[in-house]
Amino acid sequence: MSPTRLVEVRQNVLNKNDLAARALRQRFEEAGVCAISMVSSPGSGKTALLERILTTMRERYRVAALVGDLATENDASRLARSLAPVRQIQTGTICHLDASMVGCALEGWRLEEIDFLFLENVGNLVCPASYDLGENARMVLLSVTEGEDKPLKYPTIFHSADAAIITKIDLAEAVEFDRTLAHGNIQAVRPGIRILEVSAKTGCGIEHLLEWISERRLHVD
Amino acid sequence: MSPTRLVEVRQNVLNKNDLAARALRQRFEEAGVCAISMVSSPGSGKTALLERILTTMRERYRVAALVGDLATENDASRLARSLAPVRQIQTGTICHLDASMVGCALEGWRLEEIDFLFLENVGNLVCPASYDLGENARMVLLSVTEGEDKPLKYPTIFHSADAAIITKIDLAEAVEFDRTLAHGNIQAVRPGIRILEVSAKTGCGIEHLLEWISERRLHVD
Repeated sequence: MSPTRLVEVRQNVLNKNDLAARALRQRFEEAGVCAISMVSSPGSGKTALLERILTTMRERYRVAALVGDLATENDASRLARSLAPVRQIQTGTICHLDASMVGCALEGWRLEEIDFLFLENVGNLVCPASYDLGENARMVLLSVTEGEDKPLKYPTIFHSADAAIITKIDLAEAVEFDRTLAHGNIQAVRPGIRILEVSAKTGCGIEHLLEWISERRLHVD
Repeated sequence: MSPTRLVEVRQNVLNKNDLAARALRQRFEEAGVCAISMVSSPGSGKTALLERILTTMRERYRVAALVGDLATENDASRLARSLAPVRQIQTGTICHLDASMVGCALEGWRLEEIDFLFLENVGNLVCPASYDLGENARMVLLSVTEGEDKPLKYPTIFHSADAAIITKIDLAEAVEFDRTLAHGNIQAVRPGIRILEVSAKTGCGIEHLLEWISERRLHVD
């Protein structure tokens, strides 16, 4: 297959996803759901952070989550401890969530009973960038252990995000994390983006993150 | 596009890669090159480890490396400090290396003057699993900071590897790394696989890794 043909095929798949994402976005809007997606490398701490978010937010809001993984239902089981409704999407060999997977996973849920719906993508800093999930906002996570250069090396996904969340900040000292360099690299790729630093383990920075998330809903109501 | 058609297209791309990989493998064999690839999440420490490997091995062997990244030539610049020949492959928006990219990047190099060629893939625990690069052996890296469950969540790439390298072992205590659990999960996905623990920072475990790498060459000569 020629590269041109491959690009065409990819384009068709993406166009199909854009249509599905548009339909999802309309459903979310009509039901008053604020959808927030999370993307990152494997192991950046999406699930740990999401558990903390769900546990804290469910005191004030009706929250739910869909979590994507190639295999296992580990994440959904972990998140079930938050007592929020959670469903796992097993993608098999597919390296990202797409809008139709999200649509199918919502089957049977009454959207109008959800204030915030979190969409945790498969751990991958490349492919999820291109797939609109109909979300209101996208958070990209970067752990302090991954290296400050990641935004420069994976610019597309940082560019597609509305906030950059630096995770595992409790390990910053142990890994000699260079905060100025990391912030500079994020801003170089996505000027003006909101950067928040958190630790799901200690709870540090979580309040500011929840504030940012809650503000996303103002755009929905 | 129907899912069936998408699978077909993917199959064609993979078949084309298999042909290119077969040709590469033959070139490597004829020239007496032992090619070793490295796959992992972004930020697992592939480049730091590769720098350590190149610097140490070039005292005894003729070593060279190709490093893949979406953007930037940062890795090649870092690795140039090892004084080994290194070239960067910029993949743009493509989330993995393929055999034809490797073939093109070798242009002008005299393969018979290389004993070990390292191929550092784009940071991604999903897509690179499916692309044979004509390598003699594949190392999958997992850093202690990523969580012990990664082999279960990304089984395909662990299953495609010949050795699992646990990196950043100097941080094991700080992140409360559960060695038994990690080893168990790796073995569950790929029974019998060689597991090595290293720290590119302190040098711990590097000797055993270099031994394992050197042994790969016995299969080449």
